Order: sequence, then C-alpha cells, then structure tokens
Amino acid sequence: MKLSDLKPRMLMGPGPSDVHPRVLAAMSQPTIGHLDPQFLECLNEIRNMLKAVFQTNNELTLAVSGTGSAGMETCVVNLIEPGDKILVCVNGVFGQRMTDVAARAGAEVITIERPWGAVFAADDVEAAIREKGPFKVVGIVHAETSTGAAQPIPSISEVAHEAGALLLVDTVTSLGGMEVDADGWQIDACYSGTQKCLSCPPGLSPVTFSAAAVAAMEARKTKVQSWYLDMSMVRAYWGSERLYHHTAPINMNYALHEALRIVLEEGLKARWERHALHHRSLKAGLEAMGIRYLADPDHQLPMLNAVAAPEGVHEGEVRTRLLDEYDIEIGAGLGAFKGKAWRIGLMGESATERHVTAVLSALGSVLSEKGIVKEKDAGLAAAKAAYGS
Amino acid sequence: MKLSDLKPRMLMGPGPSDVHPRVLAAMSQPTIGHLDPQFLECLNEIRNMLKAVFQTNNELTLAVSGTGSAGMETCVVNLIEPGDKILVCVNGVFGQRMTDVAARAGAEVITIERPWGAVFAADDVEAAIREKGPFKVVGIVHAETSTGAAQPIPSISEVAHEAGALLLVDTVTSLGGMEVDADGWQIDACYSGTQKCLSCPPGLSPVTFSAAAVAAMEARKTKVQSWYLDMSMVRAYWGSERLYHHTAPINMNYALHEALRIVLEEGLKARWERHALHHRSLKAGLEAMGIRYLADPDHQLPMLNAVAAPEGVHEGEVRTRLLDEYDIEIGAGLGAFKGKAWRIGLMGESATERHVTAVLSALGSVLSEKGIVKEKDAGLAAAKAAYGS
Repeated sequence: MKLSDLKPRMLMGPGPSDVHPRVLAAMSQPTIGHLDPQFLECLNEIRNMLKAVFQTNNELTLAVSGTGSAGMETCVVNLIEPGDKILVCVNGVFGQRMTDVAARAGAEVITIERPWGAVFAADDVEAAIREKGPFKVVGIVHAETSTGAAQPIPSISEVAHEAGALLLVDTVTSLGGMEVDADGWQIDACYSGTQKCLSCPPGLSPVTFSAAAVAAMEARKTKVQSWYLDMSMVRAYWGSERLYHHTAPINMNYALHEALRIVLEEGLKARWERHALHHRSLKAGLEAMGIRYLADPDHQLPMLNAVAAPEGVHEGEVRTRLLDEYDIEIGAGLGAFKGKAWRIGLMGESATERHVTAVLSALGSVLSEKGIVKEKDAGLAAAKAAYGS
Repeated sequence: MKLSDLKPRMLMGPGPSDVHPRVLAAMSQPTIGHLDPQFLECLNEIRNMLKAVFQTNNELTLAVSGTGSAGMETCVVNLIEPGDKILVCVNGVFGQRMTDVAARAGAEVITIERPWGAVFAADDVEAAIREKGPFKVVGIVHAETSTGAAQPIPSISEVAHEAGALLLVDTVTSLGGMEVDADGWQIDACYSGTQKCLSCPPGLSPVTFSAAAVAAMEARKTKVQSWYLDMSMVRAYWGSERLYHHTAPINMNYALHEALRIVLEEGLKARWERHALHHRSLKAGLEAMGIRYLADPDHQLPMLNAVAAPEGVHEGEVRTRLLDEYDIEIGAGLGAFKGKAWRIGLMGESATERHVTAVLSALGSVLSEKGIVKEKDAGLAAAKAAYGS
C-alpha cells in the first residue's frame, strides 16, 4: 500500500483523535540525536508544558517512551515492590487492567467494584481501607474510557491520604479535555496518553510523580522489575545529568511538543469548556434519536460518550458503514459493553461542531434507513438547537 | 523553541541515523485509528517486510511499541520465568544490559565475559554450558554498539542448540546494515531498533520469535511480568484476531513501513555491501590520521566505528566542535570507553561517501588545529583513494 493514498478519517472513537497539521508538520522535522542540545531543550520544554497541563510543580514529570498503557505500567512498577498492597477501584476495563498490571508486579491486589458506568464514593474507598488496609497505593481511573464515567478525585484523595496511601490516578482520557489538578487534588502518580485530548499521535505517555511518590521509589529495597520503565534511570536522562538510558523517540517528542503548545495557546479552561460545549450538543442530538448514555448522568465524561446501541441494530455494521461511507470512526464497546455499545469521542481536535454535526447526520441517515429513527435529521436539529441556546 | 528552526545534523553517532525525507513524509500522513482496516493492512505489510529483512518465516514477527531496549526486554520477559537460567555473553554495554534485564525478570543469570572489543568463540559458550548449564536461554549481542565488534552467530547457535537452549540475539545495530539471517542461523528470539541501519526515527523495536520460542512462551506457568510487552496479547492484535491490547503508535508505524520499503527497494545484499564499502573508506581515512580502532580487526562492524580518541585530545570538546561548527554528530564512548572513545556511525542513510568525506574533513581540520595530525586532509585523501581502488 502507498501511505500517501490513505483515506483520512474523522476520528471520533476512544482515541486516537484528529491531529492538527501543525503537529504532523512538527513530527516530520529532521531527526536529530537524543543527546543533541537542541533536543534536550525540546525535552525541557515538554516537561515544563506537561507540568502546566497536569497543573503540578512535580519535578519528576516527563513523557514515557510508550503508549498510555506503558504509562500505567510505569507508575505501578515504580511504586510497587513484591508484596506491597494496592487497592484498585474497578468499574471498567482500565481499572481491571490496573489490577492485572499490579498483580504482575507482585502486588497483593485488593479490588473494590462498582457497576460499569457508575463511580466510587469516598465512603467505598474508606470502607475498603478500614477492612482490608493499610495499602501502599490506592489506584483509580479518572476517566474510564470503557464506560464514559467521570470519577471525582478529591474526596477519594482525602481518604487515601488519611490512611497513609499514595494515590495513583489514570488520566489517559481526561488530560487536556477536563480538569485534572495533580497538585490541587494531591495525586501522587498520574499517567496519561498523547492520542486523546492532547491530540497528538499515540506513542508517548505523560507521567508525573509527587515528592511522596519519589520518596517511596527512593526507599525501594528491590530494583524496578522493568528496566525500560525504571524511573530511577529515565529521570537521570530527563534531568540535568542527561545520562543515556534508552534512545528517546525523537520525532514523537517533536509531535508532543507542538501538541502541548497548541493546548496551552488555547488555555486549559477554554479547552475544558470547549469539550463540555460540544458534549452537550452531541448528547442532545443522540438523545433526540432515542439513544441512551451508559454512564451515571451526574458523572458523564465530556470527551467519551458511551451509549447503548439501539435495539434491533447490529452495532458493528453501523460502525462499519460510518467508516466506509462517511469516513467517520466511532468506537465499539469494550469488555462488558462489547457488542452492545458505541463510544463516541470528542477529544482535542475532534471536539468541534463540525464533528458533532457530521456524526449525528451520518448516524441519522443510517439509523433512519433501518427504521430505528423516524426523522433522520432529528439528532442534528437537536444538536443545533443546543448550540444556539 | 520553534521546531521548524531546528538545525538539521548529519547523524554519524551510534543512532539515530539520518532519516530519508520519504520516511518523514510518511510519518506525517494523517493519523487514523489502530483498528482501521487501512492501518491493519499497514501492519500486515510491516510484518511481511520485517520477515524479509530478518530473513525469517517466523509468523510471530512484529514491531514492539517502544525503542530497542523495549525489544530486549520483550524478548527476555517473554522467554524467562522466575528461576529460569540464562547464559549471557558480555563484552560491552548491551550484554551488560541484558544481564540486568534478565535478573529483573527473576532469571538465574550466569555471565561469561570477553574484553571490550573482542568476541566470543563457540568454545567459550560450550564450556560455560558444560560447567554451569543447562540453560533455557543463551543471550548474545550480534553488533555490540559500545565497542564496534561483530559477533559471529552461527557457531554459537550450534552449541546453544546442541545443549537444548534457546538463542536470543541482539541485532539492534546490525539489522539492515549487515547480514542477519534469523532462520539460517536458527535464532529463536531477536530484537532490533528502527533508528540504526533501518534509518527510521527511534520509537519501535522489530522482534521475531521462532516456533521453539513460541512453544516456550505457550508452556509458561506464570504470566509475563510486563503487561505492555506480553507477546501473548500483543500477537493477538498483530494476528488475525485483531484484539485490542494497547493503541499502536500509528505514525511511527507509517515511518517504519516506508523505511522498510526503502530497505527492500535497495535490496539486502546491496545495502550490506554499501555499508561495507563506506566503512572501508572511513577506516582508511581514520587510520591515515593515526586513529586506532577498538574492536578486534577480524570482527569489525561496518556501521559502528569505535575508535580511541588520540592522546592529548579532550574527546568531548572535539565532538562538540563537530556538532557546533560542522553540524556533524558523532558518539561518545560508553561504559569502559567513556571519555576515551568516539563512535562513528555509518548507518542506513548515513552510510554514504558524502558522510565519510564530511566527517574526515571536519575531524582533520579540528585535529590539525590541535597539532594532533600534521596534514589536515590526510584522512580525506586516504578515504578517496580507498573509494578509487
């Protein structure tokens, strides 16, 4: 195949999201060396911009050379030594993944569960700590990409810290699309991905660690089980020592640099409000077509809209038609929602009125043809009304 | 900083190497989804091209979503279970790294050592197996990037297999620049990097596993300690099941796709010969300036020329002047060679007469100014003579 013949898509799944041409242009700048002073300056600026986006002063803030799941593993394997206890809050695929990663790191893993689409109350965590604690780490997902649920963090942070635990938070899907306040919420370890609301291609995982997390790492008695993800070495490259560890993905870092510049030019608050605005209109449109959201209505993520596929519809067939006939990608259900749900992303460059109207128009056409909705433009009209109001 | 203001360099260090504009252009194609049929076709073609470059029919051949060191870790953690015995042959930094990675995976690690710049004889490995075996895995580095030594593999493979071990080979620096014959040499697990002789930006690690290696993985009693690098899941995404595991680095895979096309358009043999040709001229030039190679002369890598910095020269100052005044990057010594050596790479797009003459001309100027060489163009003249012959 010739890559120049690729059909571009409107990326409205659970990530990757649309990438700004400025980011693609930055990524195609000539490759230079990983110890070239120009590249080290690029890394310094990435760190500073990541600190702004995470809203943290944490010195140990950098981009791991792997995708979001590598960021999850980085946080877990650096904080956990064999036998350490971790409490993981599971209400979707990514909480489950955290339990698997932690068990592989030799942790004693205790889980609490909530139904898919629901979130945890601080009381749930407090009770688990009381009954089964103490824990070294409490792990939780801020934006559960498999369900569309937004987990409030501050109250969970409070009970975790009262019990002396470190708080580990998955912000893969939330960072850059809604408030993430690493310092204000006292998050100890936090990881994200580049291909969601930062609108950069996948390939890097921003992470940040608090002073308490760094102290825990420095107090380890055993080596981190992963050489590649060992922060004690990776930080010596990102830090002033500039010790060679592995060859950083140069051009991916160019891309992240430009993506972060775009985020900060827009401003965090403006960006969060933009995501919220287009979510409201998309939601109005979907509900006007009788399509039901799966997450708790009080805790709905703006950038990830997980909805039940209507009765009588083969969800995969609709997705394929959107892709083939409209060049619009939406996501399938994962895990418990497999075969039953669609996940419609409004992330970064994909959170625009153009995207909202395109997907509602296409869905309206396909579903009216199947007799599922009566008026094919009902969703579109409701979204436009929501924008107008 | 503005990335568009980056000064391009001639990359003649230990990697990354110069990247062809076609690869940069491919990398900047619009991002699409990791389950988009177009992208899955791209992955299929990458696998087929990697099979050609590794010279293997191994079905389990793919690009790991991390750099070469992640590829090393992938091979080790998938083959090793806690308590398994591995023999690692150490004659430089990357053999040492393999021992560290294996120990973190819970292996019982036995090492044999050879001086930096020397290689192993099959007898060395055979004796170690007889005395301290049996081993599940024998690990060795084909192209030791820290010393410039080229390790012959077939005889080592024979003794490893006679003793029932799996053979693990590091081809990070060799693949695409000299013969690597995974099937012919009966390599069981092999990893490489994209940023060396494949001339693609860093960020992915090609790996291939033999049927025996796959059988060993399938016979595991414990989970692979790394979730991110667990081949039992990664292969279900690259294979026909297309199960979501992690979001593949889309644009990095575009880049690798184009880089592999370029490798195969040139042809493997022609490419190896080109690397050998420019190495001979570079060597003639360096030796004419009185600069001494560090690796065993019978086992000199073409693409990585590790030489002793001449007496009386601050090696770092010379490297900095080449970078600042000539925009030429060469590498420093690593490990035992730190502060004493230069590593001059001729990898992929950086293996040309233009590169050889540029680095010899620049080195000649700087060293003659310091009184280390008498005639500043002596190296250049010797290289040109070597090309002419």
